[in-house]
Amino acid sequence: METYRAIVTKRDTRAFDSKPIPEDVLGRILQAGRMAGSAKAAEPVRAVVVRAQAQKEALAACGRFTPQIPTCAAAVVLVLVPEPDQPPGQFAYFRGPFDAGRAGQNIMLAAWSEGIASCPVTLHDNDCARAVLGLPEGHLVANVIALGYPGGKDPTTGSRPRMPVEQYVRWERWG
Amino acid sequence: METYRAIVTKRDTRAFDSKPIPEDVLGRILQAGRMAGSAKAAEPVRAVVVRAQAQKEALAACGRFTPQIPTCAAAVVLVLVPEPDQPPGQFAYFRGPFDAGRAGQNIMLAAWSEGIASCPVTLHDNDCARAVLGLPEGHLVANVIALGYPGGKDPTTGSRPRMPVEQYVRWERWG
Repeated sequence: METYRAIVTKRDTRAFDSKPIPEDVLGRILQAGRMAGSAKAAEPVRAVVVRAQAQKEALAACGRFTPQIPTCAAAVVLVLVPEPDQPPGQFAYFRGPFDAGRAGQNIMLAAWSEGIASCPVTLHDNDCARAVLGLPEGHLVANVIALGYPGGKDPTTGSRPRMPVEQYVRWERWG
Repeated sequence: METYRAIVTKRDTRAFDSKPIPEDVLGRILQAGRMAGSAKAAEPVRAVVVRAQAQKEALAACGRFTPQIPTCAAAVVLVLVPEPDQPPGQFAYFRGPFDAGRAGQNIMLAAWSEGIASCPVTLHDNDCARAVLGLPEGHLVANVIALGYPGGKDPTTGSRPRMPVEQYVRWERWG
């Protein structure tokens, strides 16, 4: 799929088919995440791939709006590793989620270009997620990308329109 | 450009040519950012496009490693609007930068697919950036995407390799 078309047609979706994702396709999707750039080339993001049903359900219990996780084919948990030279303060974690967003979007676009739908899911309870995944202290789940072939309706129809471009874009200054 | 190829060949670059970005191309790049999904469809991200030299230089003075801003063709400032139902606490801002990362990656990939290089730049002093851009209180600059045609060496050569895939990807659990 052409890049711009993939970008502008991609919709987040929650309805998945039960069909598994072939290993080679999953490999390309993960490679897309790995190739995302990061601030100061710190590479703070890791991907934990969860496909076992019990593990997906345990993860889903760590968030408040997570029905996509048990029903997806593969949940890619984007983990932020603490920066070595920095206390785990707001500053480091502010850049970290931005880099996780870059990786997540790469993953979702690579998936979408192969006909695989996706939805980012927030896990509200990081201690719960750390226990389920066995993450070391200071590691943070930035987001979970639920992946799967679309189930139910066409994922590109019926989605909420975006805000008008005049509201999204400003020129030189805010007002 | 094919989506996967755009994703895996994209490198962050700091060296730009002085050639301006045509209006229609810039329009598609901004549309790519606008179409990025967001948590709960909250659409917390806005794009302030800065091309005036004096304004680029004023912005650059708000960060510590910003030589890309005065030399780029267009700086797209990704601004986070406070969420209406939430105090401006860490939680909201934690999701916000992830969504800004999604928009930023869309912008950078759409640009890259048209031969335009880019680099995200952190502005360390948000009060400074707010003053330069005239942002309302509580608005946060998540990142600045510096855009321009590549100058100097081929942006895809000589970049640092990524961590090995075995380090990036884990299966089911961390350890």
